[in-house]
Formats: sequence, structure tokens, C-alpha cells
Amino acid sequence: MAAQSVSVLITGANRGLGLEMVKQMVEAPRQLRKLFACCRDPEGPRAEALQTLAKKHPNIISVVRLDADDLCSIKQCVQQVGLLVGTGGLNLLINNAAILFRSNLLEISPEEMQKTFNTNVMGPMNIIKEFLPHLRAAAKASGTPGMSTSKSAVINISSTLGSMQYIHQSYDFIPGVSYRVSKAALNMLTACAAEELRKEEILFSVLHPGWVRTELGGENADIDAQESVLGMLDVMASMTEKQSGAFLDYKGKPVPW
Amino acid sequence: MAAQSVSVLITGANRGLGLEMVKQMVEAPRQLRKLFACCRDPEGPRAEALQTLAKKHPNIISVVRLDADDLCSIKQCVQQVGLLVGTGGLNLLINNAAILFRSNLLEISPEEMQKTFNTNVMGPMNIIKEFLPHLRAAAKASGTPGMSTSKSAVINISSTLGSMQYIHQSYDFIPGVSYRVSKAALNMLTACAAEELRKEEILFSVLHPGWVRTELGGENADIDAQESVLGMLDVMASMTEKQSGAFLDYKGKPVPW
Repeated sequence: MAAQSVSVLITGANRGLGLEMVKQMVEAPRQLRKLFACCRDPEGPRAEALQTLAKKHPNIISVVRLDADDLCSIKQCVQQVGLLVGTGGLNLLINNAAILFRSNLLEISPEEMQKTFNTNVMGPMNIIKEFLPHLRAAAKASGTPGMSTSKSAVINISSTLGSMQYIHQSYDFIPGVSYRVSKAALNMLTACAAEELRKEEILFSVLHPGWVRTELGGENADIDAQESVLGMLDVMASMTEKQSGAFLDYKGKPVPW
Repeated sequence: MAAQSVSVLITGANRGLGLEMVKQMVEAPRQLRKLFACCRDPEGPRAEALQTLAKKHPNIISVVRLDADDLCSIKQCVQQVGLLVGTGGLNLLINNAAILFRSNLLEISPEEMQKTFNTNVMGPMNIIKEFLPHLRAAAKASGTPGMSTSKSAVINISSTLGSMQYIHQSYDFIPGVSYRVSKAALNMLTACAAEELRKEEILFSVLHPGWVRTELGGENADIDAQESVLGMLDVMASMTEKQSGAFLDYKGKPVPW
């Protein structure tokens, strides 16, 4: 994302990895035109750190309300963002917002599975579909061939917990059935989008952020949010059409499905 | 499934692969104690062929109402089946009922994605959870070590369309985004269940039936329902604990996730 002035949108930007992404993106020497930092309740107490950061960079960061569970809120967000990005479009959409329950199959309720699917799969799907006109605008406006995250891209934050091949290594430690099911579903959604929109040169990829010390990852996790985001931003910056449809970790290593 | 007298339940048993499974199971010399052939509307015109078959084998086939979308109907089915299987439990549960829409990402609506997730993922999840006491009873009653489909098993009918690795080969031909997402989710659910219930010796596996000439597969498909079911029954009969958590096609060949 170094070469040109780009517009970026991040969901779940008020805490954890999302907030750290906003921090690092706005502080790095990358040419950011606009950064839309989205969260469910921008005026609430859980968005204070984000609002403080936004006040330091008022020309770049816009804090926008977005509830991934609510199609109406997504449409409103698209309208707001559309007015600000104009014909240049939206270059990079990062679906980071997610919820995690730790229940195993015996404990899980239909309501929990439904709620997790809504936020972690239906949310990204609706967000991608609604922002598609602006992603297409960015792809067309770029004037360069191929794919990159500074041209037009969607990065869905997934997890190795969504990898069928890795279940055996982690299930006893964290079952999280609804989370795993939702991330496998999100991985498939991403792979489908990559296939379908390849000809329009919009890049789609899933990233595993590592096991990170956030609210979601817990305090015993391997790395902190800073290390994870440093890695993910590097991986994103180096992506080309070869990585569209890929599942990579924060070091750029492919993760098996 | 040759050695002992087993009880089997099949969802979506009124047509296509489900109906063919009922036919072949009841006609084969395997020792079937009970076969619960479940469908949404046993009294409706779409269940006539199943009812005719059931009348020929009244001691074995019970046609039972089951709507995978409706938890209440699942619970009623479990009650009915429970009375008939008694302490021997249910040996084999085949989640075959599924719906397929062909839409791509641009065409798909949130309602379609939701409906597909309900029938193809929430349905099997609720059915597995509600039947678990009877699957456990079967595992305990068997008296033999290890796993098999004649002891205690759940087979979820999935598809290579649910394989991330196979997308490139089939997406132009049939996008089916909601179906693919639901099958990837079902695959993960199965893999989780296999991991969690391994110690109770209940086998969980996903099968790809091939591309079959049914209502769902269309008339240009590769094989007929008879060939597919012949293959799947053979694969099921040979399954051991080694295949728990596996994704196999109707010839027994592993399918990549």
C-alpha cells in the first residue's frame, strides 16, 4: 500500500486488532487518503480510544457507525463513505469485526450459532455486497493492471480455528464450535468472491492474525496486537493477484483450509 | 453394517439420494432392525414413492415427519424414534436433507443465505444434538471396541462444492455461493463433532455423493442415484475410527477441504 494514496475501511475498529490497525496505518508513512474506522457504537465508552486517535488525525480518520448484524446500518455506512471517497472508490475493506463463543458441541445453543453466523458471515457478506460499487470504482480508477490492496481488495480476518486440518491441535484447548463453523464459512465466502471477481481485478483474501492477546484471544495468547498487525500490514502490502483466494497467516505463511 | 442388526435414520428420505438409500438398505441382505425414513411432509404427494416402499417393508421402514428447519419437529421425531429403538439406541444417522440455490455472490440475497444455512447447517447440528442420547446408547450397547457405522455414527452428506480447493474447477459452472458456504460450514461442524465425541466412539464423517442426476444435481450430472448410493453404502460399511473426521467421496477417495 505504499505507492498511492488509498482509502481504507476497517470494521470492529474500536478495540483489539481493529484499533491497532487504525493506529499503525495512520502513523505509518503510507499514503492514506481516508481511513474509515467503523464500530457499532462510536459514541459509547468502548470507542473512546478510537475517538481520541481520530481527533489527532481529523483529516484522515472518520469514525463511522457500522453494525455488521444490521443491513440498514451497513447501507447507511456505505452512503456516508461513498460521499467521501467519490469516484476514486474504496481501495481496501478489512472485515475484522467478529464474535467468539467458546462452547463445544454439547454446550452450544441454536441461538449462539445463529448469532455467530450473523456477525461473522452474513455481516461480511452484506458489507462486501454493499461496498462492491465502491470497490469496483477503485479497481477502475487505479489505471494499473493486476491486483493489490492499494488498488481494490477485501481482507477478511479469519483464524486457524477455521481450518479443518488444524482442529486436532486446538480443539481440546478451545472448542469454539460456532466460531470455527463461522470462520470456515467465511473462508469459503472469500474463496467464492475471489473466483467471481477475479476478472474485475478485486483481490479477496483471508488472514489469520496469530493468537493475539486481545479481549477475544485472552491474556495467555502468543503475541500482542502490535506484532500481529505489523505482520498483517506487511502481508497485505505484498499481496498480488497470486494471493487472491488465499488463506495466509500474519507472517505470510499459507494456512491449510 | 453387515455384522449386526442396526437401526438407521435418513433425513430427506422421500426423494433423490435419500429415497435411493432407503431402497438399497432395505433390499440388501444387511441386518436392518429399523429404518427411519424422515421427510418434511410424509402425507404429501412428494412422499408417495417412499410410502409405497414403506408399505412393502412395514416391519423395518417407519416414515417419520422431520423438518430440519424446525427444532420442535426434530424433538418430536427424536421422541418417536426413541420409543422404537429403546436401549439399543440409534446406530446410524444420515443427514442427507439439503437445499441448493445456484446464485453467485452478486445475485445472492441475505434471505437465501439464511435459509440455506438453516436447512444445511443448523438442521444437522440440531438433529445431531437431539439424537445424541440415542447415538450414545448405541455406542454403549454395542460391546465392541472402535468405531463403525453399525455401532454409532453420523454421516453428513456434503459435496465437493464445499471444498475450498475445488472452487476453481467448478465455480463458473455452478457458483451456488450459499450452498458452498453451508457445506464448508457443515464440514467444519462434522470435524468438530468427530474430535469432541471420539472418546465416546461415535464416528462422524462427511461424504460427497458424486455429481448425481437428481432434482438437486440436474439431468446432465455424471452418475445416477443408484451408482452413487451403492458407492456410499460400501464406503460407510468399511468405515472405522480412521475415517472419523474425514471427507470422502462415494468411491472412498479423500476430498481436500
